[in-house]
Amino acid sequence: MIIDDLTRRPGEWLSGTGPLSDIVISSRIRLARNIAGFPFLTKANANQRAELQRILRENIEQLKLDEPVYYVDVERITDLDRRILVERHLISRQHAEGQGSRGVAIGSRETVALMVNEEDHLRTQVLRSGLQLDELWREVDRIDEMLSARIEFAFHKRYGYLTACPTNVGTGIRVSVMLHLPALRMTGEMERVIRAARDMRLAVRGLYGEGTEAAGDFFQVSNQTSLGRSEEDIVNEFKHIVIPKIVDYEQQARQALLREKMVALDDKIWRAYGLLTTARTMSSDETLALLSHIRMGVHLGRIDRMSMGLINELFIHTQPAHLQKLCGEMLDGEQRSITRADYIRKRLAGEN
Amino acid sequence: MIIDDLTRRPGEWLSGTGPLSDIVISSRIRLARNIAGFPFLTKANANQRAELQRILRENIEQLKLDEPVYYVDVERITDLDRRILVERHLISRQHAEGQGSRGVAIGSRETVALMVNEEDHLRTQVLRSGLQLDELWREVDRIDEMLSARIEFAFHKRYGYLTACPTNVGTGIRVSVMLHLPALRMTGEMERVIRAARDMRLAVRGLYGEGTEAAGDFFQVSNQTSLGRSEEDIVNEFKHIVIPKIVDYEQQARQALLREKMVALDDKIWRAYGLLTTARTMSSDETLALLSHIRMGVHLGRIDRMSMGLINELFIHTQPAHLQKLCGEMLDGEQRSITRADYIRKRLAGEN
Repeated sequence: MIIDDLTRRPGEWLSGTGPLSDIVISSRIRLARNIAGFPFLTKANANQRAELQRILRENIEQLKLDEPVYYVDVERITDLDRRILVERHLISRQHAEGQGSRGVAIGSRETVALMVNEEDHLRTQVLRSGLQLDELWREVDRIDEMLSARIEFAFHKRYGYLTACPTNVGTGIRVSVMLHLPALRMTGEMERVIRAARDMRLAVRGLYGEGTEAAGDFFQVSNQTSLGRSEEDIVNEFKHIVIPKIVDYEQQARQALLREKMVALDDKIWRAYGLLTTARTMSSDETLALLSHIRMGVHLGRIDRMSMGLINELFIHTQPAHLQKLCGEMLDGEQRSITRADYIRKRLAGEN
Repeated sequence: MIIDDLTRRPGEWLSGTGPLSDIVISSRIRLARNIAGFPFLTKANANQRAELQRILRENIEQLKLDEPVYYVDVERITDLDRRILVERHLISRQHAEGQGSRGVAIGSRETVALMVNEEDHLRTQVLRSGLQLDELWREVDRIDEMLSARIEFAFHKRYGYLTACPTNVGTGIRVSVMLHLPALRMTGEMERVIRAARDMRLAVRGLYGEGTEAAGDFFQVSNQTSLGRSEEDIVNEFKHIVIPKIVDYEQQARQALLREKMVALDDKIWRAYGLLTTARTMSSDETLALLSHIRMGVHLGRIDRMSMGLINELFIHTQPAHLQKLCGEMLDGEQRSITRADYIRKRLAGEN
């Protein structure tokens, strides 16, 4: 089963490779599309939803993509498997918690995921580790063209692609970049960065999108609207202005820490290591925060006891659904915290 | 120099031996005395202070005690050495910070210390590890009798021994027991114990006496007044009622933790170990709190990576003055925290 296979590895977006990967975790672009002649999902009945899924699945399965694609019927899988897909950023929380016919087509390397019957009929998303927006844009545009050759999408001459939510009308594009900004957090400058991003009409969210806190110093920056600008404009603004600027701030903050607060920095990094190797119970928020410090420590050459590969695996494997999948049983919050701490200790003991 | 020699070892009161030493750190009895014909120190001039010291020193040096006694002229030693004596519980903070002729005679094993010109002309104190009140009472009474044969102490037929502060009038005795009560702290029952002790007219203080917080779960219980009761009464109340009751509460709380909160208990103990072995900067309060958890862990058989000998050494060697004495230079607060963390890490690395 595809989801069981996925669970064991970190997935492309957490591979820790790609340009600027010490600060840019991953890049993502998604396009929102709806099939002409069908109502938006808020108005669609069960038959129409089923028919939408049938059409989209059939056409997606015939696409020639760089990696094999597996279709997952999200309505029929277990709740735990749905949450695995959310933790891997392959579907949204809304899609997991939704109702009725819906699915997702997942590429075997997890660089592509097409959600069917989420907020729109189709959301095509591509994701890669590091800052790779040009590559992603070429890829998602190619997939969109292949699909457009087979399916007629709802399009208005003046407004562009029509979408269920007005913020997506136009190009239907959303560009998001996941950033790791521990130094800006430590130096107290993060608030200023968030305000500047908001002034540029960018949204700044946590690790799991809308409504989630910025756990473990991870921040997701994305465009808020897509009307009236071309896809290339939006991608270029991210590539050349927004992300380089934030990356530069973070790099400066890291250098300032190395220069002026070396002991405080090392203290944070090594205490994180100390707690991860000894704690007997640990929440997933604390785990993210501690791994975040270690990740920075490895990139700054302040700790050599953990490989980036292991850190990335721990990031995903300590998430609640992954943890339960790996240990093979459902656990309540308290049991999860104990199992998580045990799992981390064993993995770290194995590493040394 | 006696103080340099003392600095390197934990001292009798921290040896971790003696009855009930898993909970009772140490017992102490002191007697307050003043020489007849001299004013109390608040009224004494410099000449009288000097004369008092001369008389007391001469007589103390001629006593035949179980261990060799060294007289330290507290007025003439460095401020750092004074603070070393405070950290070792050989003199009070008031004595260290005082003015004018004053001193202390210290036994080589640190089970006896006679402060000259503190609040009273003479304060004879005996201390031992664990609960050893009978032994201490016999010892301090013997010293007091030997001194009384040589010096006439101010005594009033109706009130008893006269002292500078009315709370000491009568027998001049203060019995104090230092307890380690981490389980009562963890279970939130400590407040109740403190209230009960206060109802019995006992004082409950922190590790360094009056005005200090209960750092690292260490509490010092002592009688508040000594008027109208015999020394034996007070000692017996401590030995047979007060201390057994508190020890019993703590033992019950520890058993309850083992039974019902094993994971939380282990988590606290092991996280303490994790932080002590990795932190790059550590305050003395945090050090005490972490060592406190480890101490409980060793006594409950939950951790075997540290010996009690090492824990006791770390307790005293990480105190500010000891730390500076050991590293051979004066350090500000930030430097001390760094040096402390380094020292602890090295000692723990040596142990494993």
